[in-house]
Amino acid sequence: MARRRPVFFVSDRTGITAEMLGNSLLTQFEDVEWERTTIPFIDSAEKVDALIEQVNELAARERCRPIVFSSIVDEAMSERLQRSTEALTLDLFQIFIAPLEAELEAKSSHAAGRSHGIANSHEYFNRIEAITFAQAHDDGAATRDLERAEVILVGVSRCGKTPTSLYLALQFGIRAANYPLTPDDFADGALPGTLAPHRAKLFGLTIDPDRLHAIREERRRGSRYASIENCRHEVRECVRLLEREGIPMLDTTALSIEEIATTVSYRAKLHRRAF
Amino acid sequence: MARRRPVFFVSDRTGITAEMLGNSLLTQFEDVEWERTTIPFIDSAEKVDALIEQVNELAARERCRPIVFSSIVDEAMSERLQRSTEALTLDLFQIFIAPLEAELEAKSSHAAGRSHGIANSHEYFNRIEAITFAQAHDDGAATRDLERAEVILVGVSRCGKTPTSLYLALQFGIRAANYPLTPDDFADGALPGTLAPHRAKLFGLTIDPDRLHAIREERRRGSRYASIENCRHEVRECVRLLEREGIPMLDTTALSIEEIATTVSYRAKLHRRAF
Repeated sequence: MARRRPVFFVSDRTGITAEMLGNSLLTQFEDVEWERTTIPFIDSAEKVDALIEQVNELAARERCRPIVFSSIVDEAMSERLQRSTEALTLDLFQIFIAPLEAELEAKSSHAAGRSHGIANSHEYFNRIEAITFAQAHDDGAATRDLERAEVILVGVSRCGKTPTSLYLALQFGIRAANYPLTPDDFADGALPGTLAPHRAKLFGLTIDPDRLHAIREERRRGSRYASIENCRHEVRECVRLLEREGIPMLDTTALSIEEIATTVSYRAKLHRRAF
Repeated sequence: MARRRPVFFVSDRTGITAEMLGNSLLTQFEDVEWERTTIPFIDSAEKVDALIEQVNELAARERCRPIVFSSIVDEAMSERLQRSTEALTLDLFQIFIAPLEAELEAKSSHAAGRSHGIANSHEYFNRIEAITFAQAHDDGAATRDLERAEVILVGVSRCGKTPTSLYLALQFGIRAANYPLTPDDFADGALPGTLAPHRAKLFGLTIDPDRLHAIREERRRGSRYASIENCRHEVRECVRLLEREGIPMLDTTALSIEEIATTVSYRAKLHRRAF
């Protein structure tokens, strides 16, 4: 029986960190149905007060204590929030600052929003450049300039190449191309000629045929392309080709886009140019 | 004088959460130069032991205590790591589990990797669909089907529209189109005709001309397109047009891609379909 419980992710900036850690904690409690609200940009005493009021009103109305994940950097605002809300407030930031200050024998600057800021313009350019590259080299679109790729993802259509390339570019500033392997390549029993000079950069993505079938059905329902027989055939041939060519491979079936990108980056020892 | 200090982000899954919170804490200490290492997929006793050895060897060699940010969910592995490393180990996960268990009067499942997993296949489809949409509607590429967009970003070339659209799609599953505003539109003194039926979905991105100039110079150095005079002209005309048309606007100059996307999503009250 699922219990409902309201949860707030609050931050003086985007709230992305609070959401990410908060969600990863919440998924540990399976029988609770979470009602999520993210409130970013809590960066003044007035906004803290409005937030306290909003949380307390909800607590009174629902007759249950909300959970609040906060990553507010300002100490005074954070304390005020913690003290005045009728909620379990978990402060993801303050709790680690004291041990870090002791370890480093230094005071922290208690300044908000440094981590996602563009103080580091260099990283911004890297990300933009990588995104432009990933878009130009999506789905085998451009074959010139492939030597600038740091990794070239290969696999059957809809196995996760495009979102992975974009994630690698956006999050890590890595120039990732992707190139589809098609029934023609399987009939030839060889990698596309264009890819031959870049063999060392190839990384294969595979997928369970049932899942591929489900994904392709979303795109072209009832087509031969999406049929389970064709998905089984393509995946089998693709794996066979990649194995024969000695290309490293990752099964994406049970992985999220973040996990595929991180695993590829780790296994292929790619060099991140943004954090 | 910058001091160097090694820092590890370790996790039983991708390490993304540990990196994100860890980096946001580290940027509070400005005079330290961090040497970052991310070690994902620490999911067995053997890997924990190898990690402990790696950290301790580095500590001995560099004669300073590394900082370890861990988001390992398994309690026993996490304790082992904390006990045996010559480092300041900050456990981002365990510290919040106990108060949550008390509040919810429930035991957590202590199972790794739920948050980024694809248990929720529905969200995966939403993200994939949104990415396909963002790519098809990048830079005004497709004008049909615009009614399916949840937001249409407008602004001058290189103000941040493309990365923001992709981020909205990848992270939040939001269908975002983007459409460039050009000197032709400014000469007409009107929005492109294609956009007229979708006025309520438009969101303007603006940028400081100096920064735009720097970004465009990366792309086409020395061109009239990138010149500071032209950048000033385009930005001024664009802001004037958007103001006259009553389109909401965000200055992207000092913001990261995450911040632009989160702010647009918050202000335009977009509905997230992935978390």
